[in-house]
Amino acid sequence: MAVEPSTPGTVRPGGRTARVRAAVLRAAEDALVERGFSGLDLGDIAQRAEVGRTTVYRRWGSTTALVADLLADMAEQSLPRTDSGSLAGDLRANARLVRRTLADPRQGALFRAVIVAATCDPDAAEALRHFYRRRVEEWAPCVAAAVERGELPPDTDGFEVVRAVSAPLYYRMLTTAEPLDEAAADRAAEAAEAAARAGAYRRRDG
Amino acid sequence: MAVEPSTPGTVRPGGRTARVRAAVLRAAEDALVERGFSGLDLGDIAQRAEVGRTTVYRRWGSTTALVADLLADMAEQSLPRTDSGSLAGDLRANARLVRRTLADPRQGALFRAVIVAATCDPDAAEALRHFYRRRVEEWAPCVAAAVERGELPPDTDGFEVVRAVSAPLYYRMLTTAEPLDEAAADRAAEAAEAAARAGAYRRRDG
Repeated sequence: MAVEPSTPGTVRPGGRTARVRAAVLRAAEDALVERGFSGLDLGDIAQRAEVGRTTVYRRWGSTTALVADLLADMAEQSLPRTDSGSLAGDLRANARLVRRTLADPRQGALFRAVIVAATCDPDAAEALRHFYRRRVEEWAPCVAAAVERGELPPDTDGFEVVRAVSAPLYYRMLTTAEPLDEAAADRAAEAAEAAARAGAYRRRDG
Repeated sequence: MAVEPSTPGTVRPGGRTARVRAAVLRAAEDALVERGFSGLDLGDIAQRAEVGRTTVYRRWGSTTALVADLLADMAEQSLPRTDSGSLAGDLRANARLVRRTLADPRQGALFRAVIVAATCDPDAAEALRHFYRRRVEEWAPCVAAAVERGELPPDTDGFEVVRAVSAPLYYRMLTTAEPLDEAAADRAAEAAEAAARAGAYRRRDG
């Protein structure tokens, strides 16, 4: 049977369970963006998602469990890495992607909200760490490729290099009012590359 | 009149107003460490500080105003920078100080709580930015000194270098379960120095 995927109420791939989850996670995102983690309420999310409250309470049980599920979904849905053929190009692409995400009003608010959730709850913290681990695993091969090309010391820790690209952008967002512009992204990529070339991210003592 | 500064209830320098503020800020710290920003309550803080509720409500009015005042006090009280005579030594001292602060159970919880407060309220965010600006201003002269000694390019942005030391430590705390050990601090300092030497923090376009 042919369905119009954009028509509300039609069956999308994955059936009712997946459809309910998609609607609830979207509603949770909306609520986090509008009201932050402290304003999250399962009843409000059920209403926004047009899903029964009982379903939401039975399936997620708490706002932190819902945030953890949202983070699991964000990890699954997140974009594949760019392969530009050079370390400078790859790290710049990564920095610009992180920058665009954090500077986007909706995405930026969402990330601030899930960081808040992670500082308030161990399960949300674990889900947040899983999300970042997935992102770092996705991008670390660009460092291994640079090592293969002889651009970096052989024992360079790819995870540390990828994290070094993101760190100044998050720190800037959380501690300054300075704009998260493309220049900031390019500087973050350039600094991580320079430090990596100088051997600052070589693995130590196992 | 001689007073015992350690005897509860004695008059400390600054008089009653300063004494009440010190007691309330200390109580606010305790409450933030124990319960986080979302658990903050002015009545509870008045009780912990053994100060009248009316005084606390009249003087601070809201939990976010209280957090902003606490951050102002933290900025005033914070430690002077180390001057080791070399950029490597100075940045390592800065990284280790930040590391010790974030890894300390009380101080670490306090910083996570004020970061949460800053994501929830514009006044707390402004106070948090002021705190970090004061810290960066305190340490930036070590970069100017390194420029004078010819260790760094003349147009190096000291603020960016100092922020680059802190950023990976905050990012590690917020997004991983990995320990904030001294090796992480030393790596953060080394990476910032290498990137600075390579010119990654040179000022651009005014």
